[in-house]
Amino acid sequence: MTLFPIFLLTCGVAGAAGVLFKPGQWYRDLDKPVWTPPNWLFPLVWAVLYVLMALAATRVAALPGTQLALALWGLQITINTLWSGVFFGLHRLLTGAVIIAMLWLAVLATTLAFWTHDTVAALMMVPYLVWGTYALALNISVWLRNRHRTVAAH
Amino acid sequence: MTLFPIFLLTCGVAGAAGVLFKPGQWYRDLDKPVWTPPNWLFPLVWAVLYVLMALAATRVAALPGTQLALALWGLQITINTLWSGVFFGLHRLLTGAVIIAMLWLAVLATTLAFWTHDTVAALMMVPYLVWGTYALALNISVWLRNRHRTVAAH
Repeated sequence: MTLFPIFLLTCGVAGAAGVLFKPGQWYRDLDKPVWTPPNWLFPLVWAVLYVLMALAATRVAALPGTQLALALWGLQITINTLWSGVFFGLHRLLTGAVIIAMLWLAVLATTLAFWTHDTVAALMMVPYLVWGTYALALNISVWLRNRHRTVAAH
Repeated sequence: MTLFPIFLLTCGVAGAAGVLFKPGQWYRDLDKPVWTPPNWLFPLVWAVLYVLMALAATRVAALPGTQLALALWGLQITINTLWSGVFFGLHRLLTGAVIIAMLWLAVLATTLAFWTHDTVAALMMVPYLVWGTYALALNISVWLRNRHRTVAAH
């Protein structure tokens, strides 16, 4: 039995957090760097990354002795789910940056664990790692540019 | 190698959602049934449930062929992480009830999958299932008692 539907559903839960916690007027008003992507790009990128990470987990889950790799995959998707609410819901820019840093480490650990079982699965995680690096830089930049304003707003 | 630290850290991410999204004045003002537990009980219960579910996953992960069981465990902890923000952050009572219903189904599926590998691990999930049933009833009751007020408040 393929586990793809379960992994994709799990990614859907993380994606639901992104849909429920929307960037609104607050996000529009933030001081953002020129290399901030347009809003429409985020759901497209995440849809691709979610399908890729679900496919990668499916490949790994079909192999014996992959419990550690799957435990790490579960950790990263849980951190992924937490971020949207903290950033867009609570407007906590620094906490958001810390969560993305944790996410980046968890995705790196997952990718390395996948690499020991299946090269293709590890390669499928690389775009996620690249986007995570970019998202971390963006979140830190937005925090640095708005931290005084954010503190004042609380 | 025991996977307990990874599973407990994953539960910690779900617990962080509960800490970050606090019940505030909004929750105090909700019309709640008499069988609503006091606020201080929730973190205690969740601490016990998180340790139990991390121990259960650790036992199962040590056995061969438990990829499906671990995939389901990952699904349930992701849904668990989503709930706090939707209920306490967005104040969406009906969406919260739907998410707990999904969580309940995912916990049941995880418990049944654990049962096929390790009876003790399955029994360690039973308190979670019982509390989930209670939490679902509470969330539905709070939604029914406050839905007109909630709609008016939007």
